[in-house]
Amino acid sequence: MRTRLSSDQYATGILAGDRLLLSRAITLIESRRADDQALAQDVLATVVGHNSGHDLLGNGASIRVGITGVPGVGKSTFIESLGSLLTERGHRLAVLAVDPTSQRSGGSLLGDKTRMETLSLNPNAYIRPTPAGDSLGGVARRTRETMLLCEAAGFDIILVETVGVGQSETVVHGMVDFFLLLMLAGAGDELQGMKRGIMELADALAITKADGSNMATANRARVDYQNALHLFPPTGTGWFPPVLTCSALTGEGIGNLWQTITDHQQLTHQNGYHLHRRQEQQLTWFRSLVQEELNTRFFQQPGLRERLSDIETKVRLGVLLPVQAAQVLFTTPY
Amino acid sequence: MRTRLSSDQYATGILAGDRLLLSRAITLIESRRADDQALAQDVLATVVGHNSGHDLLGNGASIRVGITGVPGVGKSTFIESLGSLLTERGHRLAVLAVDPTSQRSGGSLLGDKTRMETLSLNPNAYIRPTPAGDSLGGVARRTRETMLLCEAAGFDIILVETVGVGQSETVVHGMVDFFLLLMLAGAGDELQGMKRGIMELADALAITKADGSNMATANRARVDYQNALHLFPPTGTGWFPPVLTCSALTGEGIGNLWQTITDHQQLTHQNGYHLHRRQEQQLTWFRSLVQEELNTRFFQQPGLRERLSDIETKVRLGVLLPVQAAQVLFTTPY
Repeated sequence: MRTRLSSDQYATGILAGDRLLLSRAITLIESRRADDQALAQDVLATVVGHNSGHDLLGNGASIRVGITGVPGVGKSTFIESLGSLLTERGHRLAVLAVDPTSQRSGGSLLGDKTRMETLSLNPNAYIRPTPAGDSLGGVARRTRETMLLCEAAGFDIILVETVGVGQSETVVHGMVDFFLLLMLAGAGDELQGMKRGIMELADALAITKADGSNMATANRARVDYQNALHLFPPTGTGWFPPVLTCSALTGEGIGNLWQTITDHQQLTHQNGYHLHRRQEQQLTWFRSLVQEELNTRFFQQPGLRERLSDIETKVRLGVLLPVQAAQVLFTTPY
Repeated sequence: MRTRLSSDQYATGILAGDRLLLSRAITLIESRRADDQALAQDVLATVVGHNSGHDLLGNGASIRVGITGVPGVGKSTFIESLGSLLTERGHRLAVLAVDPTSQRSGGSLLGDKTRMETLSLNPNAYIRPTPAGDSLGGVARRTRETMLLCEAAGFDIILVETVGVGQSETVVHGMVDFFLLLMLAGAGDELQGMKRGIMELADALAITKADGSNMATANRARVDYQNALHLFPPTGTGWFPPVLTCSALTGEGIGNLWQTITDHQQLTHQNGYHLHRRQEQQLTWFRSLVQEELNTRFFQQPGLRERLSDIETKVRLGVLLPVQAAQVLFTTPY
């Protein structure tokens, strides 16, 4: 059995870039034990804001990029290709995932050993799968905290992948500086698996697998989506989401895509939107923690879930009006 | 001073289609007095579900249509034109509004006497402005309840207009069967005032002012938007949101638009989506009432708003991490 380290020992190790201690600290974050959680929060509080050059908002610490796309779009090979390029350029890259399906399958797709083979052997890349067995809210919290630890350990680019289930895109959009939507070129039915509202969250669209006989289709799709995006309301940031093509196979377009992300960073740092977005994200995170705590306190009362389920059935069947149902829920003694 | 009626007297009058009693009951709904609210809830509980042919979900009672669009798109003249057509066809029409700006201006735009002059004199139309001085949540609740009263009074078509401020479109989308987005044809900058995410809520887009020298521009816009909508993910209902053109001036396209709405009703009644959407709306409404009550109980504690504001400033400035901030909020004694 391993000796239990102090939060200072963890913090010192992480700030020195010790990957083993980073991994063990992330395991504390993922733990459900109260003493692990308390220790994890101590470590976080110690390391975050400790690095010179950035504060608790993480300014200057890293570029945070969210990546989504339907299954089959090629997220893993895309991340491998982008990750190789970034590490070659001297960056240190952490790849995290928000995957609420891992609670069902018992392990993240990202944990699959056949994925990201090259990148997982790269000393300047750190890949951490989603822990299994948690709600989306739990996954979101752990991913945010893991991101902060990785930044403290010196990773200057964080990629957060999402599988696009439930509200996971919105959650990831709420924790990154740049949200990238990967798209497949096809015959118009390419979006069957994509949810409505996602396209308008994107800071850029990238059509993947733009190589070989697929080139013409990819370019046509690029023009179509670019025209469609012109009809969207402006983002309010001075940034116009572009549509790009790329190929993880040939590497074509990957460098161009990264240039787009750094252009976006430059613009939003200059016009103040970067700071604004991070501040709003922190506030939103805080408010959702408050709501979560209020809900936990209320809904954990004995028998309440059963009563709620009974009342909701009556609302659904049209036996109770919502206002009546709320009165019943709050007036019945508990 | 008027005598205070019993809830049975209100209910009988409303079910008989008495407009005066309907108006007085809506005033009760809008009142902040506890005894008025109690009476209003009694009246609601009595009339709703009382009409044969529909239940508490309002099935069979009416078609509920939400209408939004940026200022200047011509919502009022559009509603006048559509309303005249519907009353000529024997329908009885209620026009409500969700306008959270009325709390600032002290009165709804819809209450402006210069608007909807013809319709306001029409015996088969009932126009009710938004009450002033309330939050969006409050406006939403009152509009929902007013809608139920109007349905009980025999109005078979409810139009809910929104000015598109804050989250008002989402709120209106959550209370109607069909959500219509009015758009101006222009030079590409027509959407400056429109928020992102609204286009994907729409069950149809209508390009207004498609008359005279504006026809060609309107038709071009129609084709552009239709192409853009094809790239959107499917709605999951079997319905493909069409883009239409219309003119309140010439009346052209208004009948066609109504046909679209009834086509949608027929499809969604047949495939079960109509019932599903209303059930989900009731559940969402109920859940938001529960959240509202939990928040009220917590945030109304003495001094809590000030402490919260202080803590949020620290989160925004990066002095506290969100998790730390939540701990401070919940552990400090109050």
